[in-house]
Amino acid sequence: MKRVVALLGQGVVPVDTPILRADDLGVLRGDGVFETMHVRQGNPWLLDEHLERMVGSATRLDLELPPVSQLRELAAEACAAWDDPSEAVLRLVCTRGPEGGGSPTVYAMVTPVSDSTRRVRREGVRIGTLSLGFPAAARAAAPWLLGGVKSLSYAVNMACQRWATAHGLDDVLWVSAEGYALEAPTSTLVWLEGATLYTVPTTTGILPGTTARYLFSRAEVLGWHTAERMVRPHELESARGVWLTSSVRGVVEVRQLDDIKLPESPYTERLQDLLGYPL
Amino acid sequence: MKRVVALLGQGVVPVDTPILRADDLGVLRGDGVFETMHVRQGNPWLLDEHLERMVGSATRLDLELPPVSQLRELAAEACAAWDDPSEAVLRLVCTRGPEGGGSPTVYAMVTPVSDSTRRVRREGVRIGTLSLGFPAAARAAAPWLLGGVKSLSYAVNMACQRWATAHGLDDVLWVSAEGYALEAPTSTLVWLEGATLYTVPTTTGILPGTTARYLFSRAEVLGWHTAERMVRPHELESARGVWLTSSVRGVVEVRQLDDIKLPESPYTERLQDLLGYPL
Repeated sequence: MKRVVALLGQGVVPVDTPILRADDLGVLRGDGVFETMHVRQGNPWLLDEHLERMVGSATRLDLELPPVSQLRELAAEACAAWDDPSEAVLRLVCTRGPEGGGSPTVYAMVTPVSDSTRRVRREGVRIGTLSLGFPAAARAAAPWLLGGVKSLSYAVNMACQRWATAHGLDDVLWVSAEGYALEAPTSTLVWLEGATLYTVPTTTGILPGTTARYLFSRAEVLGWHTAERMVRPHELESARGVWLTSSVRGVVEVRQLDDIKLPESPYTERLQDLLGYPL
Repeated sequence: MKRVVALLGQGVVPVDTPILRADDLGVLRGDGVFETMHVRQGNPWLLDEHLERMVGSATRLDLELPPVSQLRELAAEACAAWDDPSEAVLRLVCTRGPEGGGSPTVYAMVTPVSDSTRRVRREGVRIGTLSLGFPAAARAAAPWLLGGVKSLSYAVNMACQRWATAHGLDDVLWVSAEGYALEAPTSTLVWLEGATLYTVPTTTGILPGTTARYLFSRAEVLGWHTAERMVRPHELESARGVWLTSSVRGVVEVRQLDDIKLPESPYTERLQDLLGYPL
């Protein structure tokens, strides 16, 4: 697969060059933070918002990030070496570095937007609910569980997405032990009731979605209010639209939720347009 | 820090050589498995048991491990290059490999046993309980939560150990949402009541401890029975001994559990001796 890799302090390096040591805690312990962004016309979209969240994740992990100005330059270096003027994916990664101490490993990687991403933007997703095991309030009371932190420890997120694929689905919606909708493994739940666009409160320990936040800041363009509330999946059946938002896919419509077929929402294209994602 | 690194298919490589690519899912997603073993007289102890557990973890992650015979050779290569005849630590790591597909990254690493490990073997540990958020039965019913899987996604485990350090403690004992003791972030809880040695049932989603299993297989040498049961931390106050077992530290005695000072157990040295860990 085509990609560009840039390493902090070294700039762009050949893609196949290994850049992480065997004792890097990012590998041994999934101990590090990352952000994924959409690249448009060669520039990462909502870069400041993503950097802000990355700083927040690093603080929660007691991880020393390089200065944000250096991360911004690194992102620019990687994007400048990417020759496709349409869209792309940018990831910024910062690990804790070697186990015995030493500098963190910090890099940026640009990759193409996949065909499956383009497909779900057009066709929407069929998703199934899976319990995340926690009561909805558990993580707010237990910061060591790293609710709201975008760490490199995504094995459960990936296992859930493999579960979806194995069940003929596109994605998963995590629910709390009591059955409240939380978030998807790599995206945020958003839905429309009347003229109010809703999402799930971050007090549940979900990751604060940058794309959802941007969408909410622009909702009045569509004449909508915004609010947060707890919701059970079956309540979404009567919504005027249910979406998953994330940096790369943008806004994708949920067309099936467990056994419930959701009617096509008339608002999906307008939302994608508002956020500037190509179909 | 002194260390030896051996890479599957290449053998021993210089320690500072990066061996993982930027797009390795072991880094990007903590998506991979590992095992940590005690090395004695140049050989990994309980290697077969650890390999068996590693195969189990990989199966749960739908991850293709190299044949066990190759992992055994890799472990031997790394240990052969380690020149200290006393004890050491061996880790085996297998990631899912590059994101676009390709070979997994498989390596072995040998490192010294730390001074703090030697200290807690002699002095025991002071630990604090932290909630893991889950009800005790949650993970058995939800295999996608990866209970019992030793994956590279250990950010929460590390955050809990940092919490311990920040609170002047040596380690953490995770408890379920209902307050049952589960396990520690990198070790198994074992305790003695009467003439019965207990540990926590793996139906709680804890990692099955290889050191605890070996200890249980030898308990009759000490005239003890063995059993599993759920326990609340305060019940441990009346135990004849409370220990954390793990491959590198071996058997360490719990001397303080939250605010409870536990009396010194007369059995700790006998257990360490039985398992062959130096003090």
